[in-house]
Amino acid sequence: GSGQASGEITAPGVTTGAIRGSRKVHHRTESGLSVPARRVELSNGEHLDVYDTSGPYTDENAEIDVHRGLHPLRSGWTDGREHRTQLEWARAGVVTREMEFIAAREGLPTELVRSEVAAGRAVIPANRRHPETEPMIIGKNFLVKVNANIGNSAVSSSIEEEVEKMVWASRWGGDTIMDLSTGKRIHETREAILRNSPVPIGTVPIYQAMEKVGGDPANLTWESYRDTVIEQCEQGVDYMTVHAGVLLRYVPLTAQRVTGIVSRGGSIMAAWCLAHHRESFLYTHFSELCEILRSYDVTFSLGDGLRPGSIADANDRAQFAELETLGELTHIAREHGVQVMIEGPGHVPMHKIEENVRLEEELCGEAPFYTLGPLATDVAPAYDHITSAIGAANIGRAGTAMLCYVTPKEHLGLPNRDDVKTGVITYKIAAHSSDLAKGHPRAQERDDALSRARFEFRWTDQFNLALDPETAQAYHDETLPAEPAKTA
Amino acid sequence: GSGQASGEITAPGVTTGAIRGSRKVHHRTESGLSVPARRVELSNGEHLDVYDTSGPYTDENAEIDVHRGLHPLRSGWTDGREHRTQLEWARAGVVTREMEFIAAREGLPTELVRSEVAAGRAVIPANRRHPETEPMIIGKNFLVKVNANIGNSAVSSSIEEEVEKMVWASRWGGDTIMDLSTGKRIHETREAILRNSPVPIGTVPIYQAMEKVGGDPANLTWESYRDTVIEQCEQGVDYMTVHAGVLLRYVPLTAQRVTGIVSRGGSIMAAWCLAHHRESFLYTHFSELCEILRSYDVTFSLGDGLRPGSIADANDRAQFAELETLGELTHIAREHGVQVMIEGPGHVPMHKIEENVRLEEELCGEAPFYTLGPLATDVAPAYDHITSAIGAANIGRAGTAMLCYVTPKEHLGLPNRDDVKTGVITYKIAAHSSDLAKGHPRAQERDDALSRARFEFRWTDQFNLALDPETAQAYHDETLPAEPAKTA
Repeated sequence: GSGQASGEITAPGVTTGAIRGSRKVHHRTESGLSVPARRVELSNGEHLDVYDTSGPYTDENAEIDVHRGLHPLRSGWTDGREHRTQLEWARAGVVTREMEFIAAREGLPTELVRSEVAAGRAVIPANRRHPETEPMIIGKNFLVKVNANIGNSAVSSSIEEEVEKMVWASRWGGDTIMDLSTGKRIHETREAILRNSPVPIGTVPIYQAMEKVGGDPANLTWESYRDTVIEQCEQGVDYMTVHAGVLLRYVPLTAQRVTGIVSRGGSIMAAWCLAHHRESFLYTHFSELCEILRSYDVTFSLGDGLRPGSIADANDRAQFAELETLGELTHIAREHGVQVMIEGPGHVPMHKIEENVRLEEELCGEAPFYTLGPLATDVAPAYDHITSAIGAANIGRAGTAMLCYVTPKEHLGLPNRDDVKTGVITYKIAAHSSDLAKGHPRAQERDDALSRARFEFRWTDQFNLALDPETAQAYHDETLPAEPAKTA
Repeated sequence: GSGQASGEITAPGVTTGAIRGSRKVHHRTESGLSVPARRVELSNGEHLDVYDTSGPYTDENAEIDVHRGLHPLRSGWTDGREHRTQLEWARAGVVTREMEFIAAREGLPTELVRSEVAAGRAVIPANRRHPETEPMIIGKNFLVKVNANIGNSAVSSSIEEEVEKMVWASRWGGDTIMDLSTGKRIHETREAILRNSPVPIGTVPIYQAMEKVGGDPANLTWESYRDTVIEQCEQGVDYMTVHAGVLLRYVPLTAQRVTGIVSRGGSIMAAWCLAHHRESFLYTHFSELCEILRSYDVTFSLGDGLRPGSIADANDRAQFAELETLGELTHIAREHGVQVMIEGPGHVPMHKIEENVRLEEELCGEAPFYTLGPLATDVAPAYDHITSAIGAANIGRAGTAMLCYVTPKEHLGLPNRDDVKTGVITYKIAAHSSDLAKGHPRAQERDDALSRARFEFRWTDQFNLALDPETAQAYHDETLPAEPAKTA
């Protein structure tokens, strides 16, 4: 249950309670949907409602039981509705409940949501078998979103710990979570995460397929991969990374690189192609894959297996050759009615960032771009949340719809709880900076409210409006009674 | 003395010893000047020399005695030379020793250094009375530089602590230091810093002038200000922030702002103008100020007293009106042979950053731009090193020559030792990202060396090439024996 102090761990092991200085509110749509927001009450009698990814965990009135899972919010939403994807409904001119929910959540017209989905410029990752999700949208004309990766390590993580990582990352603003777990309990871990997750869950099915074949890429088969995808669709995974653009003939293009192939999925598929000297089974069976994903409305996240792993390799022929193939696959998926987003790099210096977005939009019919950073320099391991936030803010401004976070441990080790929070907050900064630069109609409200509080020395309001109220207050209290700096 | 373990505090209280995995080397110029660099030796037999701001403190062969001060490297360099500024020598076609030193340090042609200084596009802040400095240059066609602010608080700092802050900030890459100290021991504190500083020191003389008149802006006079400037010039301050662009008629332009006037110097001068209903004495006596600064070759840093303190106020009429006046003053200063740089904001959303650089270059004859951040959003107090690194990397890419750092404590309290390091490293990331984007001919060497080490699993080389080797290694060791992440 909840009702505990903010940020405390309560039985059965996940963080509940309102974020400091705010409480959950619900807005009702015309048709009666209840859409959550986080309300920050200010000392001058005003309030600000902010976009809220944290789900029922921050609702003082919610009953939380990790073993039972969240209330299936969307159950019944599709009753009596044919099995069509959000893309197919949008094309047919139908506004689904998911679209209505999203319009209220973003503060934007319902018709904009429908038309952007219909055009493939936005996706709604919402597997019919994951009714616990609060619908959200990924597209350049909406708020820029943040993905957080979680994953167990064979050494140290329990299932409950993994559920808590998801709760923790979405508490601080993670819009989606990728579960990159490996190992023996991969199915149960994913099940626990899905049943407890208010945000869409993504996976990379090839990781589990590798477990099934004992870890040797050469042993992978289309059939084992297909069965893994079906297993994960059945569980409720909302979007899947598929590295179907790593073609046999592209592998040699990486030979002269400084950092070769750094994507795990890309390495696996390159190894398979070379071992069999055949074209990738993900590419040759792509239409069958589309049929499977369509029947659950799972969204493709077409992976960039040949993304650059260093500044030196950015925007090279290997990277852009794969992107051309992802464009070809995007159009095939859309013909099948399947929603698609496109993954992007990685490591890119600032002056080469825009070209990535321009080419992606041109080749992939403006499918939402979903990038990992990119890191704007390679020289600062231990600070790669920052090197990549610089790239992320810039690529977001240029039109990228979702930013995959990077933590301070990138390249060095596994992130702990503090690293996950730091990564998420850092990426909320990048995403919000992009929203401001793109002129999202409501983005500046929060900056203005916080700046007014600052100028009027309403300290508590300033803390409560911050992305991380607890740390802001702690830093302030640390140097009392010294007069606060007021220089920037 | 040195010879202690890296990063240890040694008597008499400053940090000495080589940065982990590197050692001081000296390159000799044609005329025999000895130019320091930091050499990172790699396990594959190669090495990389990196630009080094840390001075003799990281030289195992140097004798350090804070009470005696550093060896006066430049003493004698101006013997037999008329009292001209670097700007005047450059215009006369003369390459000074400072220019020769800088050319070797930057790895760029001597003639480029001279011609950029002659054009006013670059400055060499080097007071003749601060011979301890290792000459450096600030200009858009050179490496982007980082300034770190230090300053005592009445509550907590001793003189030795202030010297250590300077040593600590330049150890991690601070190219210049601004001493913002206040209080009774301001003269002695500054003296200790100057005699021990290998990097140029900047000040805001109006702060000390305020101490002299008991803290009431209305009591300030031109004479008291002038005497303070002369006192600081005599001590060896290399550049001075002068808020001479805050004109009486501009003050009402700030009335409707969300955050009014946030610059301390700007507030003081606005209060003086309003109290006397007269034009600013800094503006009316500007030519006399030029004569004083010229005789020491102190560089103007024309302050932006009306800079925006929030996203809402960015690029407004008050800000740009002041910038027009700074342009007027730039041309007056140059007529007097005085070097000039221009200070800039502050808080600016990404899409309004480029206009700042364009206008500054147009109005101020391409004088080097020196900005505080800017913060790209207001919503993340406790993370303003990151919100501002996003802005700083972008404004650096657009042509800003020096970036004033922001620490995690900005808006909240006084930075401690860790905050200073975090601020400097974060700004080195922003500056280096800008250098890459601008295509500085040598910038990518370090990225490539580190990425090669990463790809070949030469862990120690990767740590030693990092901006912060100690933290990189600590993060790696923390999660051993888990396999390191290799995703980005």
